[in-house]
Amino acid sequence: MKRLIEKANALTESLPYIKKFYGKTFVIKYGGAAQVKEELKAPFASDIVLLNLIGIRTVIVHGGGPKISDTMKRMGKEPVFVHGQRITDEETMDIVEMVLGGLVNKEIVALINNHGGKAVGLSGKDGNLILAKKKMLKRSTGSDDESIDIGLVGEVDQVCPDLLYALERENFIPVISPIGAGLHGETFNVNADDVAASVAAAVKAEKFILLTDVAGVNNKKGEIIATVHKKDIKKLIDEEVVSGGMIPKVQACRRALDGGVSKAHIVDGRVPHCLLLEIFTDQGIGTEIVE
Amino acid sequence: MKRLIEKANALTESLPYIKKFYGKTFVIKYGGAAQVKEELKAPFASDIVLLNLIGIRTVIVHGGGPKISDTMKRMGKEPVFVHGQRITDEETMDIVEMVLGGLVNKEIVALINNHGGKAVGLSGKDGNLILAKKKMLKRSTGSDDESIDIGLVGEVDQVCPDLLYALERENFIPVISPIGAGLHGETFNVNADDVAASVAAAVKAEKFILLTDVAGVNNKKGEIIATVHKKDIKKLIDEEVVSGGMIPKVQACRRALDGGVSKAHIVDGRVPHCLLLEIFTDQGIGTEIVE
Amino acid sequence: MKRLIEKANALTESLPYIKKFYGKTFVIKYGGAAQVKEELKAPFASDIVLLNLIGIRTVIVHGGGPKISDTMKRMGKEPVFVHGQRITDEETMDIVEMVLGGLVNKEIVALINNHGGKAVGLSGKDGNLILAKKKMLKRSTGSDDESIDIGLVGEVDQVCPDLLYALERENFIPVISPIGAGLHGETFNVNADDVAASVAAAVKAEKFILLTDVAGVNNKKGEIIATVHKKDIKKLIDEEVVSGGMIPKVQACRRALDGGVSKAHIVDGRVPHCLLLEIFTDQGIGTEIVE
Amino acid sequence: MKRLIEKANALTESLPYIKKFYGKTFVIKYGGAAQVKEELKAPFASDIVLLNLIGIRTVIVHGGGPKISDTMKRMGKEPVFVHGQRITDEETMDIVEMVLGGLVNKEIVALINNHGGKAVGLSGKDGNLILAKKKMLKRSTGSDDESIDIGLVGEVDQVCPDLLYALERENFIPVISPIGAGLHGETFNVNADDVAASVAAAVKAEKFILLTDVAGVNNKKGEIIATVHKKDIKKLIDEEVVSGGMIPKVQACRRALDGGVSKAHIVDGRVPHCLLLEIFTDQGIGTEIVE
Amino acid sequence: MKRLIEKANALTESLPYIKKFYGKTFVIKYGGAAQVKEELKAPFASDIVLLNLIGIRTVIVHGGGPKISDTMKRMGKEPVFVHGQRITDEETMDIVEMVLGGLVNKEIVALINNHGGKAVGLSGKDGNLILAKKKMLKRSTGSDDESIDIGLVGEVDQVCPDLLYALERENFIPVISPIGAGLHGETFNVNADDVAASVAAAVKAEKFILLTDVAGVNNKKGEIIATVHKKDIKKLIDEEVVSGGMIPKVQACRRALDGGVSKAHIVDGRVPHCLLLEIFTDQGIGTEIVE
Amino acid sequence: MKRLIEKANALTESLPYIKKFYGKTFVIKYGGAAQVKEELKAPFASDIVLLNLIGIRTVIVHGGGPKISDTMKRMGKEPVFVHGQRITDEETMDIVEMVLGGLVNKEIVALINNHGGKAVGLSGKDGNLILAKKKMLKRSTGSDDESIDIGLVGEVDQVCPDLLYALERENFIPVISPIGAGLHGETFNVNADDVAASVAAAVKAEKFILLTDVAGVNNKKGEIIATVHKKDIKKLIDEEVVSGGMIPKVQACRRALDGGVSKAHIVDGRVPHCLLLEIFTDQGIGTEIVE
Repeated sequence: MKRLIEKANALTESLPYIKKFYGKTFVIKYGGAAQVKEELKAPFASDIVLLNLIGIRTVIVHGGGPKISDTMKRMGKEPVFVHGQRITDEETMDIVEMVLGGLVNKEIVALINNHGGKAVGLSGKDGNLILAKKKMLKRSTGSDDESIDIGLVGEVDQVCPDLLYALERENFIPVISPIGAGLHGETFNVNADDVAASVAAAVKAEKFILLTDVAGVNNKKGEIIATVHKKDIKKLIDEEVVSGGMIPKVQACRRALDGGVSKAHIVDGRVPHCLLLEIFTDQGIGTEIVE
Repeated sequence: MKRLIEKANALTESLPYIKKFYGKTFVIKYGGAAQVKEELKAPFASDIVLLNLIGIRTVIVHGGGPKISDTMKRMGKEPVFVHGQRITDEETMDIVEMVLGGLVNKEIVALINNHGGKAVGLSGKDGNLILAKKKMLKRSTGSDDESIDIGLVGEVDQVCPDLLYALERENFIPVISPIGAGLHGETFNVNADDVAASVAAAVKAEKFILLTDVAGVNNKKGEIIATVHKKDIKKLIDEEVVSGGMIPKVQACRRALDGGVSKAHIVDGRVPHCLLLEIFTDQGIGTEIVE
Repeated sequence: MKRLIEKANALTESLPYIKKFYGKTFVIKYGGAAQVKEELKAPFASDIVLLNLIGIRTVIVHGGGPKISDTMKRMGKEPVFVHGQRITDEETMDIVEMVLGGLVNKEIVALINNHGGKAVGLSGKDGNLILAKKKMLKRSTGSDDESIDIGLVGEVDQVCPDLLYALERENFIPVISPIGAGLHGETFNVNADDVAASVAAAVKAEKFILLTDVAGVNNKKGEIIATVHKKDIKKLIDEEVVSGGMIPKVQACRRALDGGVSKAHIVDGRVPHCLLLEIFTDQGIGTEIVE
Repeated sequence: MKRLIEKANALTESLPYIKKFYGKTFVIKYGGAAQVKEELKAPFASDIVLLNLIGIRTVIVHGGGPKISDTMKRMGKEPVFVHGQRITDEETMDIVEMVLGGLVNKEIVALINNHGGKAVGLSGKDGNLILAKKKMLKRSTGSDDESIDIGLVGEVDQVCPDLLYALERENFIPVISPIGAGLHGETFNVNADDVAASVAAAVKAEKFILLTDVAGVNNKKGEIIATVHKKDIKKLIDEEVVSGGMIPKVQACRRALDGGVSKAHIVDGRVPHCLLLEIFTDQGIGTEIVE
Repeated sequence: MKRLIEKANALTESLPYIKKFYGKTFVIKYGGAAQVKEELKAPFASDIVLLNLIGIRTVIVHGGGPKISDTMKRMGKEPVFVHGQRITDEETMDIVEMVLGGLVNKEIVALINNHGGKAVGLSGKDGNLILAKKKMLKRSTGSDDESIDIGLVGEVDQVCPDLLYALERENFIPVISPIGAGLHGETFNVNADDVAASVAAAVKAEKFILLTDVAGVNNKKGEIIATVHKKDIKKLIDEEVVSGGMIPKVQACRRALDGGVSKAHIVDGRVPHCLLLEIFTDQGIGTEIVE
Repeated sequence: MKRLIEKANALTESLPYIKKFYGKTFVIKYGGAAQVKEELKAPFASDIVLLNLIGIRTVIVHGGGPKISDTMKRMGKEPVFVHGQRITDEETMDIVEMVLGGLVNKEIVALINNHGGKAVGLSGKDGNLILAKKKMLKRSTGSDDESIDIGLVGEVDQVCPDLLYALERENFIPVISPIGAGLHGETFNVNADDVAASVAAAVKAEKFILLTDVAGVNNKKGEIIATVHKKDIKKLIDEEVVSGGMIPKVQACRRALDGGVSKAHIVDGRVPHCLLLEIFTDQGIGTEIVE
């Protein structure tokens, strides 16, 4: 009975958050440990189904890095990276599309559906959801900037959210692969954080939540910074508080805020039910990026 | 953090119930300690608001016995009861209507609204919601049945749920006083359990929940009976397992089931958050009456 | 046959008014003789039902003064007034709410429903319809203004007309008690003319009609003034053409006009069918207040 | 003032009829004196506009006999009738269509619109509203039946009321010429009473009202028979109570009743406001034909 | 089989035009040879039905000149023209209305319906579609302008397109006679090109297409000018490139463009399927008038 | 100009078919040469876009055989077939899903979108569109039937068309991979013809069109049989008129008809614009299977 009452209390404490977020849209970048570790999959799926049932609309954008390289190797092709970006020739692009759109995307769809949701997998080609254009890699070399062609790597040019709205009207949960459609029929490999940030901006999401494999943005003492204001991002990067792989994540958050998203969150995907913990508590977990 | 994870687990465990009851209507008879004791009011109101936010539609029917007698005495009128039924002359009826419709009903409305809900108080006259007809008291006296006139006491003749639907469409929460409108302009004092059971049948409620001041239906050893089947009710009454004030409550449940309600519940209103405990656990609390 | 033809002519003469007011909303302050005298009740109810059938939406706000004092006395409490305002302690507020919301409101609802309408009784608490705040009585005393605390007397802070719209969509006729909901859970006794004027402004009513016990605003010769322009109200009060109890009525009309109502009318509620006479004739009856 | 109160009473007495017919459809055959005499035109138009404003939907079917013959003569063509039916060759049909569809129909449309309605003129060709087939004239000659070809005279084969519904949805008032569209592109001259009865049946009208130049069906003493039951029609014809031009009118009423119309009325169109008199009184005027 | 493949190719080549015009409205002035010559009627009707099926909404405005004079003569009335305008007394107006609204309009309706469309014939009186005012003929005479009264000839004052929208919602095809309703109950004879241009402007048509009996606007060498820019119209008239009967046609096109129509076309109605040829080819046929 | 007129004629001849199929749904099995040969891709895509623009709703189900085996080989896995069915272990299933859902599906989506359509790629997992169950291979061996486990090969258990309806409402064109979702989270490789037939039955398609690499069903003389009646299928198989790979195709057609589809067609996908030829001609091409 005590257990039951604690449960009732937990529900009651959630009430203000449910009221606050009712009918709002959250765009969630799903990746890292949360996507890969078996024991984290069920909590993620059940969180998503729960959020949808209590009136929060979710859009999921996933990545899929390691599986792509594995498959390339199995097909006798060595992955090559320049400055962290995958050199993407046509054959590589085919493999990226097969793995992301065919395997990873549908696995997430099935995972959510097996927990009682109604997920629908999409790539950026579907309904021209993500229009992309070729991205050149910029590299500073002494006096000049050098532009490197890294193949079919794209950046988001435009998001056409009509398909998302059509699905949401019928309570389907969109799950998006970061594949972009070029204007001339090309297929582009687009960074998943970028796709997620652009989608969040296009649908004017209430929250943009990035699941990562770190506890948040740390200050120099190693403590999590609870809140970062947009205007301070540049300073934090200059001071190398934000550095390495955290830089593009923080920049994706900034772009989402620029596009009209209310709040962005860098959340530790290694914690089970991290979505609920972020959403249903005042302090949240991880780092929030706000105006 | 441990506290947070327990909270997330509590939400997660609620998921199957939220899924099960999404979009369903629960009719709740609100009365007894839950309605009177200060410390039970806030949990009730917060439960109602929570249920509505997660997609469960609620209709509340309340009683209000003690306050009626208090007011009668203050106005110099002695309450008279025959077989537990209040003799209701016109002046008494006016007091019943004033207390139930004016004071008690609006107190509940304000309580829910102060917790963030959108409650609307109604009596059976509003939109001809509860049409009632005069009820005669039957008393067995030796060989014959005797019929006693107890004044403006009525029983439900017909429920016109259009007003409830109009309010639900806009997410208002109806709170109903057990006052019935007679066909010839009379006002009738109707038993609140009966009104609640009739409303539950009229809207084909998923659950009819009776908040009482007992832990449920007890067997002869004093243990709670978890489930009573409709067909066994007569036997339980004959064997005096169900007796006294529990008899009309069980009969109201039976009428609700006869009218198409899926399940009826006799729940201990003295337990804070008893609604959540009943709805979000498999065992529930109290006694359920089923087909 | 002559009788029939006169009837047809009467209908025909009404045509321009029916065309003019089709789909418009009238807010009617119901009180005084019209509300109390038995022989005036049926004509009022039948007028309301007729107006609704020919496409005019009505919202009724009622008062209920004498009944409140009667009930207070029966409960051993002496009514106290300061400058015409009822000193309202908590106990008095309970009685006000009981009498207005429980008895008077539901009597009007039943009256209209028995004439074939679909009335629904509301207080300002329902759906947070009338949010009110405490009103202090101002009294000029020689050099200074004095502020007197008269208890739970409130003034309208905000009207939330969503509930009215939800009811109108389904052709229900709202009947409102002048009870206001405070922001901190208080209940306020609010002047019915003020509530009616505020509701009229909130729904941008075509007409605000005040039923009173006088024939209209008289000039110094005792003749009714057919039309008063808003800009002249101050002068009429300064010259004591408008005086005594007529002052707050004219001021309520002014507030309604300020809030966007097209016309306000002070109408003699003692005349049977005064609503029809006002609405279906060019000259109208009583005094109209216009921009 | 007395005049005003009589007017209010007239409106009040209309209330039960307005309630009864709200949202119902009346099909009115407009012809005879009501259509031709100048002083009867305005009352007819104002009645139609009034009925529509108080929620009664009207469909008007008109005739136009004399004007057709006039125009024929002006164009040097002698009208020929056999057993009361106009022999209709192609040239005659053109004149019929010109006069009915071009002149008479649009005059009625303008008349109603000038009184504030929104009339739309139609012929049976518009939206294939009235599909007709050739009608042969049957004549008994001693031992045999003879079939006479009277040209492009048709009878109603099918009514497609979709166009009427599209117009009613937007509160337009359909005014129909009795021209039928043949399946093979022919144009047919159809009896207006027949078209009106068929339209009334197709839209399941509440009332079918035939405006005529007589006071109703008379009994042998010359008194109006208030009510004729459908089953008695044959007997009344056999006994020559119903005779001459009244026979096809009574038969059109019978067909309307057979098709599901609630009541048919033969009304004296020479009385100003005869529509209001029929609809807003219990006794009505003229003769009603009922099941 | 070769025939079939050519057919498939024709459909395929139409695809870009179908995409481009999907859901757009075209207003078509129907007149001249296309309306009169038997062999051109069926292609016109089938074009109209086809356009509607592939999602192009059409509104047709027709003329009817020769038939009016014929009928006048048959009725012993000599047509009189001043500067190309028909002197229209009341009797003439009746004939105009009979011929246009009764005969010509319904013939076109039947023609389209027999090809599978759902046409509905309208005059400007129906639903007050075309409000017109009296037009005076201006004539320069040496030093002064002279104003000549030519009777019931009108010009468009206002178009009320509500009726067109009501019909289009249900996929009916409006066919309009150029008859205008005066504000004081008059009937006006209005130039059909003017009515068509005004309707095109009122519904913000994508195209305004004038079917004429010439191949287009010719330059001085007798070649068709494919495109005329609005700003050049005055110069073309001054240089007498555009002259005679072509002047009012070009001016109607200009008015349509001024009113917001995207493109106007002067098309050779003598070519079978001229509508399809204009719409489904890049070069079109005839002359287009553009901004 | 002659070319243009032929084009107009082609459009005109299509009119009856456009009328007939307006608003109907066609399910198309896309495969074989039509899917693989470069020069057939554009005609297919343009046909699909055209059909959708003229009001025919299409659902496409595709196969993808050769690409699967190619990819398997590149990944060092030898494809194994038993009785024409691919032995599908988990690793093979992953490859099937990658190739079909990731590569082939999205290529078709992009092809259609580049022709101006709004295609959306789906697998049977999306929105639980295709629920499948394990299929055992039956093999007759002398006296007994032998059941062979061929791994994750499934057959359609249930189609949930809600997702298709949600997409069609917004004019998206669904493109489905033949992947089935098992009830216990499995992924099944399902025959594309079977999926297409089941989807056609679920949406009560007007036509089920199978694009194949043959000209149709041949009789023993090698001539195409234009029409096969469902009742004759068994006989045709027994007589080996229908044999080999044609048997499952004809059986898929039969299942579609059993499920309520109006007509099934086996069409030669090697002919450019075969869809238009089938739909817009009376004789059609290939073989139709009818009740």
